[in-house]
Amino acid sequence: MIDREPGLGSAISFVTLGVADLARSRAFYAAMGLEAHPRSNEHVVFHDLGGQVFALFPRAALAEDAGVPASDATAAIAASLSVNVSMETEVEAILQRAERAGGRITRQASPPPWGGVRGYFADPDGFAWEIVWNPAVTIDADGRVRL
Amino acid sequence: MIDREPGLGSAISFVTLGVADLARSRAFYAAMGLEAHPRSNEHVVFHDLGGQVFALFPRAALAEDAGVPASDATAAIAASLSVNVSMETEVEAILQRAERAGGRITRQASPPPWGGVRGYFADPDGFAWEIVWNPAVTIDADGRVRL
Repeated sequence: MIDREPGLGSAISFVTLGVADLARSRAFYAAMGLEAHPRSNEHVVFHDLGGQVFALFPRAALAEDAGVPASDATAAIAASLSVNVSMETEVEAILQRAERAGGRITRQASPPPWGGVRGYFADPDGFAWEIVWNPAVTIDADGRVRL
Repeated sequence: MIDREPGLGSAISFVTLGVADLARSRAFYAAMGLEAHPRSNEHVVFHDLGGQVFALFPRAALAEDAGVPASDATAAIAASLSVNVSMETEVEAILQRAERAGGRITRQASPPPWGGVRGYFADPDGFAWEIVWNPAVTIDADGRVRL
């Protein structure tokens, strides 16, 4: 099902919502039965869904991280889909592939403050995909992550 | 990590993007290495990521299914997160819990044309969550699905 070229074939490891009020959203999802992971803090909230992470991040911060203006924080960046890769070189390779495929790189492969390397591309509708190499995140054979 | 009351603790089984042009998006994701599942058709495209489904659905159709006006097909419904549950009664139970938690039910538990029962709620930012009971979908112990 997955070709050999670096691409999106592995699991979506993080689903991140760009939210207006992190505390409000954390409380809502707690009331829905999702316990925030201990690594959550005042800047970001993680929920470990067993090999998949559901994250909450302030919308402006998500837009900034993705390299798009906060004013563009609409559908394009209100949510992001992340793929964690096991080799640093895959990040740039997948971004380049996205550009060849007609996508738009919104953030070149670069090191975020929390370590590793990540880049973002926008798909034809502007949906944000983050490609991440993070040595602090364990990835299983299916591409699923453990915080 | 998961309490006993029906809630969102299981894996996000489907990530669905509401897209402007289904053929364009299918071609883009094919170019990115994602092969459309044979069950894909002219109305919807599925990609099996190994226990998780990445789907493409026309934005207006997604808004209609979620019970929101197409004019509201912004961040709220440009993407949806689905949780497949193993018991039909869990759909209504989770929707009710979302309402108690401060969410808004946009579609009451009801049978879609393709079978089963599903309902939608909007979280505090309006993000669409679909709770689905579909006997045609196999769910493993982790809440992951197989098409």
